[in-house]
Amino acid sequence: MSSKIDIPPNSPFTIHNIPFGVISTKENDKPRCATAIGSYALDLTAYAKEGRLEGHAFPFEVFSQPSLNAFAALPRKTRAAVREALIRDIKEDNVPKSCLVDLDVVTMHLPFQIGGYSDFYCSLEHVQNCSALGMGVNIPTNWYYAPSVYNGRASSVVPSPQPIRRPRGVYYDTDGQPTYGASQKLDYELEMGVFVSKPIEQGSEMKIQDAEEHIFGLVLLNDWSARDIQVFEMKPLGPFHGKGFGTSISPWVVTLDALQPFRCSPKTKQEPAPFPHLKWPRNEDATIDVKLQVSLIRKGKKMEMATSNLKYLYWTPFQQLAHHASAMCGMGTGDLIGTGTVSGDAQDGEGRKLELGCLYEATNAGTRDVQLPDGTTIKYLGDGDEVILQAWCGDSEGNGVSLGFGECRGVVLPAHSD
Amino acid sequence: MSSKIDIPPNSPFTIHNIPFGVISTKENDKPRCATAIGSYALDLTAYAKEGRLEGHAFPFEVFSQPSLNAFAALPRKTRAAVREALIRDIKEDNVPKSCLVDLDVVTMHLPFQIGGYSDFYCSLEHVQNCSALGMGVNIPTNWYYAPSVYNGRASSVVPSPQPIRRPRGVYYDTDGQPTYGASQKLDYELEMGVFVSKPIEQGSEMKIQDAEEHIFGLVLLNDWSARDIQVFEMKPLGPFHGKGFGTSISPWVVTLDALQPFRCSPKTKQEPAPFPHLKWPRNEDATIDVKLQVSLIRKGKKMEMATSNLKYLYWTPFQQLAHHASAMCGMGTGDLIGTGTVSGDAQDGEGRKLELGCLYEATNAGTRDVQLPDGTTIKYLGDGDEVILQAWCGDSEGNGVSLGFGECRGVVLPAHSD
Repeated sequence: MSSKIDIPPNSPFTIHNIPFGVISTKENDKPRCATAIGSYALDLTAYAKEGRLEGHAFPFEVFSQPSLNAFAALPRKTRAAVREALIRDIKEDNVPKSCLVDLDVVTMHLPFQIGGYSDFYCSLEHVQNCSALGMGVNIPTNWYYAPSVYNGRASSVVPSPQPIRRPRGVYYDTDGQPTYGASQKLDYELEMGVFVSKPIEQGSEMKIQDAEEHIFGLVLLNDWSARDIQVFEMKPLGPFHGKGFGTSISPWVVTLDALQPFRCSPKTKQEPAPFPHLKWPRNEDATIDVKLQVSLIRKGKKMEMATSNLKYLYWTPFQQLAHHASAMCGMGTGDLIGTGTVSGDAQDGEGRKLELGCLYEATNAGTRDVQLPDGTTIKYLGDGDEVILQAWCGDSEGNGVSLGFGECRGVVLPAHSD
Repeated sequence: MSSKIDIPPNSPFTIHNIPFGVISTKENDKPRCATAIGSYALDLTAYAKEGRLEGHAFPFEVFSQPSLNAFAALPRKTRAAVREALIRDIKEDNVPKSCLVDLDVVTMHLPFQIGGYSDFYCSLEHVQNCSALGMGVNIPTNWYYAPSVYNGRASSVVPSPQPIRRPRGVYYDTDGQPTYGASQKLDYELEMGVFVSKPIEQGSEMKIQDAEEHIFGLVLLNDWSARDIQVFEMKPLGPFHGKGFGTSISPWVVTLDALQPFRCSPKTKQEPAPFPHLKWPRNEDATIDVKLQVSLIRKGKKMEMATSNLKYLYWTPFQQLAHHASAMCGMGTGDLIGTGTVSGDAQDGEGRKLELGCLYEATNAGTRDVQLPDGTTIKYLGDGDEVILQAWCGDSEGNGVSLGFGECRGVVLPAHSD
């Protein structure tokens, strides 16, 4: 009845991972909670029914919900114990066969019912590049004193691999006249997303040293951007439709517990020193070493566009959450924070920048072509282009302590016509 | 068993109103749907149980929900029929006594579970004043081509009369140095809120001529603002903590049906003409004539600060919704749109402006004192100050076809100390 689970060498879902997500299948179209291991989804409702969680003191119905919200609202210790029970059963070949479904036949849903979605602007390199390109001329003073952030549209967040439709909106045409039409400057942004577990009541603040208690885990996040609409609308209230037409996330949430072995110090020292309410107590575990990659599929060919790393962020995810919660807006279980585009400054031998997290940076706001490996060039995304974000911690072949985030993909559909 | 309901002459809840809200009482602390008439809340769960809605073909359990979301998701026709049945029964003294509760003993809850909250910036006078005061120097070109809007925090919306705590945040101190502390420039903003009924799917657009199908009704909305935090953080991503610490709404939602007799043409002609997707088909019912008032209670004395009118808005609520839905962000039942501060340009005999919807405008960004009727002066709100918004359509004494929105109030609590 139990089965030995082989984990293919390049699988993101190693024994060190045990991410959580929401699945459905043709046989059982009710969305429900699961984990992923190797090539399988492990149905947690079935797992609990098989008695594999006996002795754990929480209502197992949390797993039959269509989102992780109820599970994520449990104490961190309880969730960690579930993860450890799963690791033990998998290692000891004790997972009942009835709980396993091939990932190939699984439909992935949004992992959370998302109450609020906010997106940060926290990579020094990204902000330098964007500022120089006219988003704000120079980096504004405030950026160095608190993480910069705007509220996004929770309703626009979709799970990979759902397609993204090119939006229509108002922007300056090539003659500088305001016009309404399909965006001509569609872009991706290489980001991660952080899901909130323990809520913070409206009217209350949160201490930064408690941030880990409030983070369930991380996903990949593509903050699709229509640069023409964004540039038109941004003054003075910030981005709205330039961002709000769609945001893709990877469907498996990697827990903060799984990421513990990859905690590290950030790339950049913060000058000026952060205010006390934004100061993380230790440098050595202030952020997380997550390798990032963005690729483009055009005419069947997958081409790497950039690599990056979460630890490049000037303001860490823990500082982002502390800032977010500092003015008492309230945060709920399932709220999503985007880290903002993560760019770096590495170059190849010919001075080509390798770590630019969006086309706006890579093409100098669409003023120069970027050469693709297949010999063609790109300024912005075309209809039919597919963008894939990937991320892993440790060895990408799965050796040693390592894990991956799976994929965050989405193909561009043509704009609606009247 | 039935009772004649006397409607006091100055009651906002006239026979022309029949707003919807969510109540609980000491005897029954389960939040549930109700309407308000005169000095009474009329419990709709009890009303349906008494058989008063027999023949109406929808599940009456919508009324025992802790929000109006399920009711608002019903077709507009169905909701209108409920309102008409209520009006008939009230007029004919046929409301069972068992359904009535004194408004005095009722606790009001948020009327909707709010999935998304966005706030507009659409009053020409407000935008002119704020731009001149440095929010953006001149009115940006984009403002004339599409309504300006940012996403707010749904989690921060609270029902009147819940108090609002002064936020702490980062801002420039009097020496121009970034500092962290309690906001010194707390302000109110006189706005209305629009609740969405029929949802618009993510990936879909909405035609402006269908906007009425998607609007449940309106409330008063106080977009509390911490001007020092807002000014510090706004570049380039717009307002965040300067707005996100709390937003108050009046708890009774006045339906679009009730507002039908007060539809009118807007105060200002739009130049340039709006793009087709933002063009309302008729001038004569393009907006709504709602008289607005903001008052301050300080040391027990209620003082009028300003009056205004919803019809002053350059971009109407229908255009706001059409713009919001135009880039396919998706909108859900219970989503809330703030109209933005509604200011006007009327002056008294001494050239004092009477229709400034916030203190930032009235005090020239806090650079001059405003004289209060009690002889004291004000720049920004102090702890203990209470702000009250009120609104009515038609005669405020309740003569003829008229209705009111009740009150949106909130008292300022001191900031948290460590």
